[in-house]
Amino acid sequence: MKIPVEISARHVHLSKKDFERLFGRNNELISIKKLSQPGEFATKETLTMINQDKKMENVRILGPLRKNSQAEISLTDAYKLKLAPIPKIKVSGDLANTTKILVMGPKSSVKIPCIIAQRHLHCSDKEAKRLRVKNNQKISIRIKGTREITFHNIIVRISKDYRLSLHLDTDEGNAAGIFRKTFGEIVK
Amino acid sequence: MKIPVEISARHVHLSKKDFERLFGRNNELISIKKLSQPGEFATKETLTMINQDKKMENVRILGPLRKNSQAEISLTDAYKLKLAPIPKIKVSGDLANTTKILVMGPKSSVKIPCIIAQRHLHCSDKEAKRLRVKNNQKISIRIKGTREITFHNIIVRISKDYRLSLHLDTDEGNAAGIFRKTFGEIVK
Repeated sequence: MKIPVEISARHVHLSKKDFERLFGRNNELISIKKLSQPGEFATKETLTMINQDKKMENVRILGPLRKNSQAEISLTDAYKLKLAPIPKIKVSGDLANTTKILVMGPKSSVKIPCIIAQRHLHCSDKEAKRLRVKNNQKISIRIKGTREITFHNIIVRISKDYRLSLHLDTDEGNAAGIFRKTFGEIVK
Repeated sequence: MKIPVEISARHVHLSKKDFERLFGRNNELISIKKLSQPGEFATKETLTMINQDKKMENVRILGPLRKNSQAEISLTDAYKLKLAPIPKIKVSGDLANTTKILVMGPKSSVKIPCIIAQRHLHCSDKEAKRLRVKNNQKISIRIKGTREITFHNIIVRISKDYRLSLHLDTDEGNAAGIFRKTFGEIVK
């Protein structure tokens, strides 16, 4: 079974409260592109990430709004922003004990937890059955090419709302030399 | 046998002719740090890489001077510089049919071939025998950690002047979550 591979660039998820602070009360997130996971979308809205004299502009917000705000960046981004300590490599939503980053919107700025996302496989219950994987299991996926690579320690995340997709960050995508629509294969 | 892993940041090798053009005739490369490969060193000298309105400053020159100039950057760098077409993933020294990049020194600027370095293992004849690998063979090396990874398609480069070391670029190092002195292991 071929596993579709997707690369996530740096992005931000916001809580309703943080969104209202950053953009003003009467705005709403405007979807400009549906993402592969049902209900998820890229928005028109962007923020600027700031750490002392370093900044990264045009960081995309992904919708919908969530319970807690979080920023997801690559290690390359973390070094560029000179974040210290370097944010932890964590599963999305696990925001304990990681570095915070200042994000600036049109109305104000807030500090939110920042992580390096642990590589993970989204799949539905049905897909999980076919692949014989369980929730939170760690698996390995091999991706062919000039920069052929096997990613280990990929955490499986199963939900009826998910659709089969291996999520990597830009460092991982570049290390694997991924330029176009790419598929991987689970290896034992 | 543990394989030491080293990360190469973007850098430039220069021919004598290009070096003299960029810095003026009476200068010499000044070593500030020996590298793991005998005779190789980081120099005091840096250049600026330029592509249209994009630039990267303080790009290190590695010595000694070589027969041909070449720039080695990561895919992240290539995207940041908006290089088009994206430089080829190539073995160091193979400079045919790849994108050129403008490098600027204190005296002038020159266009030199630019590659994304193919991951490679340096080793001496003796180390190669112990590892049972041959020159130009493709091997796989696994690196443990939170971002555990197996790099395949690593080209073996044997020379009496080499010392055992897996060379990765910054994207590959970050994808593997390498923060400190790290070792890998050859896998079949």
